[in-house]
This record gives sequence, C-alpha cells and structure tokens, in this order.
Amino acid sequence: MKPARERAGALSGPLAGLRFASKESIDIAGTVTSPGNPNYARDRAPAAQDAPVVTRLLDAGATWAGKTHMHELAYGITGINPHTGTPDNPRLPGHIPGGSSSGSGVAVGAGVVDFALGSDTAGSVRIPASYCGVWGMRPTHGRVDERGVVPLALSLDTVGILAARATVLQASMQVLLQGTAAATQFSAVGVFASMPAIAAVAQEAMQATLARLQGLGLSPRTLQWNDWAAALDAQRTVQYAEFLGAHDEWLRDSQPRLGEDVTQHVAQARQLGTAEIGRAISARTRHSDGIRALVEGGVVLLVPVAPDVAPSIADLQDMQAAMQFRRSVLLLNCLASVAGLPAVSVPAGTHERPIGMQLIGPAGSDEALLELAVRLAD
Amino acid sequence: MKPARERAGALSGPLAGLRFASKESIDIAGTVTSPGNPNYARDRAPAAQDAPVVTRLLDAGATWAGKTHMHELAYGITGINPHTGTPDNPRLPGHIPGGSSSGSGVAVGAGVVDFALGSDTAGSVRIPASYCGVWGMRPTHGRVDERGVVPLALSLDTVGILAARATVLQASMQVLLQGTAAATQFSAVGVFASMPAIAAVAQEAMQATLARLQGLGLSPRTLQWNDWAAALDAQRTVQYAEFLGAHDEWLRDSQPRLGEDVTQHVAQARQLGTAEIGRAISARTRHSDGIRALVEGGVVLLVPVAPDVAPSIADLQDMQAAMQFRRSVLLLNCLASVAGLPAVSVPAGTHERPIGMQLIGPAGSDEALLELAVRLAD
Repeated sequence: MKPARERAGALSGPLAGLRFASKESIDIAGTVTSPGNPNYARDRAPAAQDAPVVTRLLDAGATWAGKTHMHELAYGITGINPHTGTPDNPRLPGHIPGGSSSGSGVAVGAGVVDFALGSDTAGSVRIPASYCGVWGMRPTHGRVDERGVVPLALSLDTVGILAARATVLQASMQVLLQGTAAATQFSAVGVFASMPAIAAVAQEAMQATLARLQGLGLSPRTLQWNDWAAALDAQRTVQYAEFLGAHDEWLRDSQPRLGEDVTQHVAQARQLGTAEIGRAISARTRHSDGIRALVEGGVVLLVPVAPDVAPSIADLQDMQAAMQFRRSVLLLNCLASVAGLPAVSVPAGTHERPIGMQLIGPAGSDEALLELAVRLAD
Repeated sequence: MKPARERAGALSGPLAGLRFASKESIDIAGTVTSPGNPNYARDRAPAAQDAPVVTRLLDAGATWAGKTHMHELAYGITGINPHTGTPDNPRLPGHIPGGSSSGSGVAVGAGVVDFALGSDTAGSVRIPASYCGVWGMRPTHGRVDERGVVPLALSLDTVGILAARATVLQASMQVLLQGTAAATQFSAVGVFASMPAIAAVAQEAMQATLARLQGLGLSPRTLQWNDWAAALDAQRTVQYAEFLGAHDEWLRDSQPRLGEDVTQHVAQARQLGTAEIGRAISARTRHSDGIRALVEGGVVLLVPVAPDVAPSIADLQDMQAAMQFRRSVLLLNCLASVAGLPAVSVPAGTHERPIGMQLIGPAGSDEALLELAVRLAD
C-alpha cells in the first residue's frame, strides 16, 4: 500500500468501523490515478472526484486507508511490476501475490485493512484472493458501477472486493451492487467431468469445499463442458481489441515505458485483423451462451481459481514459463469472465498453502452467492 | 418462393397439418444453400443434412414447402435483391416486403404457407413481419440452434419464425426453443419517454397496442433510455467485424458480384481498425447491460418495428435515401439485437397499411412473450 492520509467515512452505516484500501486504477479525489505505470500519471490532472464505488463505501461508513499497488495497466495476473516493485505474498514470502489487484490481496491478507477494492477482467480479484488466502468477489458484469476506474477491456471488466472475512465481503459488496437481484435458490453444485490440469493441493481443496457445500444441502452434479481453451482464446482476442480501444491514443502519444509482458500484449493486439476479431466476438458470444446454460436451474459451479498455490517470483523470470503459467490460471477463470457471471473466491487449502475455489452463479445471483459464502464460512 | 418438391413431416405432432417455408440461407438436405447471392452456391456441394431447426419442425409434423428468397447475404432490411429479384409486398404492391427474410414474409403474408423460418440479426424477422402484416419472433440469443444457417454476425444472429396466426407462431417456436424458460410474469409495459421519430400511423398503432396490453392487465411504465444511436453504432461496427469474420475468405477467394449496398458494407468493414472495433465491443456490452436492466421486474417493452409502413421500391433507388431509411428502422430494432433479447412483432395498423409492434422481454422470456402474443390476438 502507498502512504496516504486516511479518510473517514460516514459516522454510521453498515460498514462503520471497517477500513478499506483501493486499487491504484480507481479514482480518489485529489490524487492522480496511476494504474501501475508511472508514465500514465504524467500530464494527467488529479481526479476531480472519487469513483462512485469509493463514494458508496464511504457513505456506508467505511474508512479509506490508501491505494494499493497493482499489475501494470491491470494486464497481468502475477502482480510482478517492473516499475513499482512487487508486493510480497503474506503467506508465502518470495512468491507472487497474484494480480492484477496484487496490493489489494496483500493488504487484506496481511491484515492492514478489512477489505480492498479491486477489479476483475480475467481473474484479477479472484487470483490475488486465492494466493493471499482471502475472500474475493467478481460481480455480475454491469452490476457494479465502473466509472472512475481505468478500463482494461470493458466488456469483461468488473469492480470487486477482497476481504478477510465472508461477512465483510457480503456487507461491502451489498453496498456496491445495483440493479435487481435474480431470484436464485442454489440446489446443486456443478463440477466438471473434465477440466484443465490442477495440482493435488487444488484437487484436495476442491474436494473439501465440495464436501462443505454438500453439508449445506447442495447435491453434486457432473457437467460436460469442453470449451475451456476455445473460450479463453476468444476472450484473449476480444481483450486485446478492447485494451487497444481504451489505450491506443495514450500508447501512441506518450510512448510509455512498458514491462516485457505488457509490451508483448500491445504487439499482439496491433497484429490483429478485423476478420480475426470478428470471429472472436462470435465465438465469445457462443461460449457465453453455453456457460450461462450450465448454471441454469439452481446450479453453482465449483472451479479452482488456480491450478496450484502461488509460484515463486524467481520461477516466473523466464518469459515462456510465465506465459504457460498465465494460461493455466486464466483457463480456470474464463467461465465467469466470458459469460459475465458473478464468482466468489472461497479461501481453501491450508494457512501456508492457500488456494481459492470459485463459486460461480447465474447472472444476477450475486446476493445468493454472498449468502452461500457466509454459510460456508460459518 | 422457389419451386420445390414438398417434404412431409412426421405423421403426428404439434405442427401436423401445417406447411412451412425456409429462408434460402438455411440448409435443406440435398440442395445447395444459396443466401441471396448466386456466386455463393458456386463450388459448394449440396447440404448433407437439414439444419437442426428444419429437422425439429419436420419431426413435429410440419410439411416443408420450399425455400424463400432473401436479401443478399442477409445483410439488408429491404428485400431488394439485384440478383434474384425482389418479392412484392402482398399488402402494398410495389412496396418492399422488408428483409432480410423477405420471401418468408411474403410467403406467409400471401397465405402460401402457415409459417416460415427466417433469421434475425438486426431485425430481419421483425421487419418483413411488420411490412407483410404477420407475426414474427426473434428468440433470446442462443435459445434456437443456429447450425446449418449461413451466418451474418453470430453474436447477433438468431433463427426465428414468421406466422400468419399467433397460435401458429407459438406452436412452431416452442418446437425450436431449447434451454430453460425464465420464470417471467409480465406486469408492466414499458414505453419510452423519448424514441426515434415515427410516423402517425406507427404512433396510432402503438397506442392501440398499448390499450390492448392494458386491457390484459399490464400497467404502463415510462422508461428513460437515450442510447438508441450509440447502441446502433456499436452494433453496426461489431456486425461489420463478425460479417468479415464469417465471409472474408469467400469474399477474397471468389470475388463475388455483390449488390451496391453489400459492396458498401464490405468496404466499411475493411476500413475498421482494431481500436475502433474494441471500443464498439465495449460499448455494445455496456448498452446490453443497460437494455437488460430496462426489462427487469416483469416489464415488456413496446416499440414499433419501423417508423412507418413499407416504403415503395422506387423510393429506395436513391442510395442515400436507402441508407437513411435503413438507419431509421434499425434504430427501433437495436434494443433486442444488442442485448440478445427475445422480441415478438405483433401485427398492427390496418390491412392496407400494416405495421408491426415489438414486444421485448428479458432473456429467456420467450415462452411468456409467446403466451402474451396469443392473448393479444384473442
């Protein structure tokens, strides 16, 4: 976290007594928004007002405690940042915190704040929550106000929260959620007949979470879905195009220094052709329809956030290893992202080896998911 | 319609005794699929099997009576086709039938068949239904199988039906719909405080339909939404990209002769840049979220399909007039298309001056919309 003068929220409200931090990409009045890249802030004026999500939390009684570091431009899942440094994992020193909401994961995981705002495009709340051993939520796309947040890929972007306790996640997310809650009664937990490869620790954590869900009365259901790679490929191309749509002017005008990974993303985005993007838009929608069908009729999906606990920072120095790691994690996170569905990351594994389990529900089931999270935590 | 040998369906079933036609872009086993462009069929083998929608209708007892003409590549809303000729409007001779499912509208409007398969990307079922004085439905995106249908822009494409009677529309659509119906109870009819300009005939037809809906117990609700133009612009760009994604290889390899309007679409599509498409993807999703919020809580939207009755073919010879006309109609059709929502076109106006009114419901409310259509028709 970056040093800042605390700002107290309303005297009373559902979040009174709680302290929160906010990702650097989220506007805080009077400060320059700087999404993990020092050039971005150059020539930009301080934000005139807080992002609406910040206002809501302050109005609900929470105290703002500062901004948190992040992966450059939110375009990465490790939290390794060549410009600002990499926040260390509070549970596994020397290992990545996960990203892009890396500092938010660490600030919550280390107990510096009760909860923190993050954003989740392809997993950027869920992944640091998983690696730092805390709760995290990506809401249904469109149910949390995204104004005043630097975009990555707006059709995928969501603003979410990481929290140390499920009740705090519930209370803080309820302050942010707008629109109508879907009437959802979860009766079954969907597990996939085939899934991307995961390590034994993830397998065990998943079985333990499944047992707890069964204990809450949900019956297991085996689901068939084999489009993991195809859905992720479509998501990646759409994300490239939207990233350029949001940042092309700045990238051309400012020629900022970028880390190796983001440099590669920009190059890939610039190589795309219209037909290729068009096919990705089509495929993304088809997969979205397919994924949404999986959660019809009271089904909550159970999928690990990551195939293993956080890797060490040293292990990711090799670019090819880093890219393989990236894909292995994003494959597990693409269901909620591609289909715009809400997902809660439930802390599982052990204290020294934390790993998160996603619960994914239908569009609008955010409140029902949060309720399920609280019951799981009891 | 094109001459063909009829194919009888199953001996019994919910559609027994009914005859239907199918748009030229839909596979019929043993014939070459030819979506309104003669070059398309060149070098292509006959379809090995019927499209799944055709199989479902035959299995339900309907008899297939032939293929219907269409707007070239489904990329137009007039039905004017420089290669195959333009089916005449059965109610207003010399006027356009509407498109792209032009022949389907005419075949049903003229009483040649009981119902006809069409496809609706930006209004291509609703518009010919409106101009030909029949019922039409665009389903929730993804609820009707699109395999075996030549795509236009898959994230927007749907397969739907045009029918002379509401009960036939209901029976035939129910055979096609897959997935789970949303539990929807319509209690309010949403009308917009501001809307694109419409003629007096559309205004009167809308008031008459509103009165009938109120007679069925729905209370009127005034809605604010001002993103008509922005939503349509996003849709247009996404549609260009997906169209190229589907047809770029064929267009380059075959260099087909294309009508003036489709030639212009191709040129526009080829001029797009990645950042521009990216911004359109982002905007489309934002508008989709906004439109979906409008139909929450039991609201069915009431919007005319077109600002006026069908224009004469002569009036659209001027390219600029044709483009203005196109935009004025698509503006009214973009809500359901952008958000993937189901819409029924209800015949209104008079016998000589038919014009359709859209009823648009939330995702998955197809069955509830069909039920409402049948009650309206009583």
